Amino acid sequence: MRLLIAYDGTDFRGWARQPEVRTVAGVLEEALGRLVGKPPHLSVAGRTDAGVHARGQVASFPAPGHLDPERVQRALNAMLAPEVVVREARWAPQGFDARHSATSREYLYRIDTGPVPDPFDARYVWHRPGELVVSSMRTAAGHLVGNHDFASFCRVPGRQAGTVRTLRTLTVVSKGDRVGIRAVAPSFLHQMVRSLAGTLAWVGDGRIDPDAMPGILAARSRGAAGPMAPAHGLTLVRVGYGRRR
Amino acid sequence: MRLLIAYDGTDFRGWARQPEVRTVAGVLEEALGRLVGKPPHLSVAGRTDAGVHARGQVASFPAPGHLDPERVQRALNAMLAPEVVVREARWAPQGFDARHSATSREYLYRIDTGPVPDPFDARYVWHRPGELVVSSMRTAAGHLVGNHDFASFCRVPGRQAGTVRTLRTLTVVSKGDRVGIRAVAPSFLHQMVRSLAGTLAWVGDGRIDPDAMPGILAARSRGAAGPMAPAHGLTLVRVGYGRRR
Repeated sequence: MRLLIAYDGTDFRGWARQPEVRTVAGVLEEALGRLVGKPPHLSVAGRTDAGVHARGQVASFPAPGHLDPERVQRALNAMLAPEVVVREARWAPQGFDARHSATSREYLYRIDTGPVPDPFDARYVWHRPGELVVSSMRTAAGHLVGNHDFASFCRVPGRQAGTVRTLRTLTVVSKGDRVGIRAVAPSFLHQMVRSLAGTLAWVGDGRIDPDAMPGILAARSRGAAGPMAPAHGLTLVRVGYGRRR
Repeated sequence: MRLLIAYDGTDFRGWARQPEVRTVAGVLEEALGRLVGKPPHLSVAGRTDAGVHARGQVASFPAPGHLDPERVQRALNAMLAPEVVVREARWAPQGFDARHSATSREYLYRIDTGPVPDPFDARYVWHRPGELVVSSMRTAAGHLVGNHDFASFCRVPGRQAGTVRTLRTLTVVSKGDRVGIRAVAPSFLHQMVRSLAGTLAWVGDGRIDPDAMPGILAARSRGAAGPMAPAHGLTLVRVGYGRRR
């Protein structure tokens, strides 16, 4: 069964189940366990870190055929909403796996450049007072789109099988005090989006030249890029299951 | 000194200072007390109830002339943001009083009619699944605008000096699953906006005919109108200090 999930990541230590701490998978699997007898293992498209949010997370689990998706949705929401909301539950084609079947992930990183934070979304937006030059950020983003070795934007490159990824989209939009960075790729390295966002913020405030990006990529060293932006500004927006490109 | 304030009302028992409970005025006055030696009394434009939010609340207090407004803003935000944010602090003309000088208050009541709540604004929006017929709500609102006795939309009419008010604006806007009710008046009765919102919701779902409004006003009885909408959907948006009309 396939679940489309939104959550406020503020009070979770990320997605992945861990002993002793509160995680999104932990509370979902426990709630599912009450329905099906035994907590199933959820496969998930985006293993979000502590504090990261999701609007369009997708998870799947092997479910007994008699289970009604609408009942699953209703029961999970009764236990977990509005912190974790199942937006949709449905049967998936044979062989569907939320993680392995996914062909793209889309993230949005949000920055509030205004002088004071906004109480209504301070938990979802990085408050970073001071103007950002969006045109510079766009120039930098243009250098980063494509197929590259993103080792400079990955927290612990050694722990992953290769650091080459295809960044399909990296756009910067702004409206009033808000700047949004949208990133789409078949898959990302660990903390890659936050490293991209932190680096683009340094480009926006003039600390890094936008045309330094090719050199930063070539350095293949985390120290070459800008800082990692805080987790709470990041939201997993959408997971794609179209054809692989 | 005049303060422009935004707050998330979720964890407050309203604006007004009360012993033993956490209120917005309570935390602000205490924080100001640390700056000026003794907690001042804040005059406020809108005494919001428990759970009600504000984007553009205005408060004022008598401040010693050597106090720097920017320092007040910085210090209060350092202590209270992002739950309570001072958006602006400045000197006001002699005789200014946030409550008595105000000439209009504008409130926004928000409803989410979608099937499941949204984790990112569930605390600021009344989640009420099921379609609302906005055109009917607008017809009803048209009957309510103007100078009327609003006793039917007031929680405890007996405790206030008169129940006649001039509702200058009552508009209903909708976008996707969201319905917003905007109300502007020189002043409102206690819980009047929430009573208007609850009544308009009953109009929207067909339980009350929009053309029943004149009769409901004439009844001058709280029981004649619809229910009171929950506090957390309400936000004080703006306070006006223009000429009295």
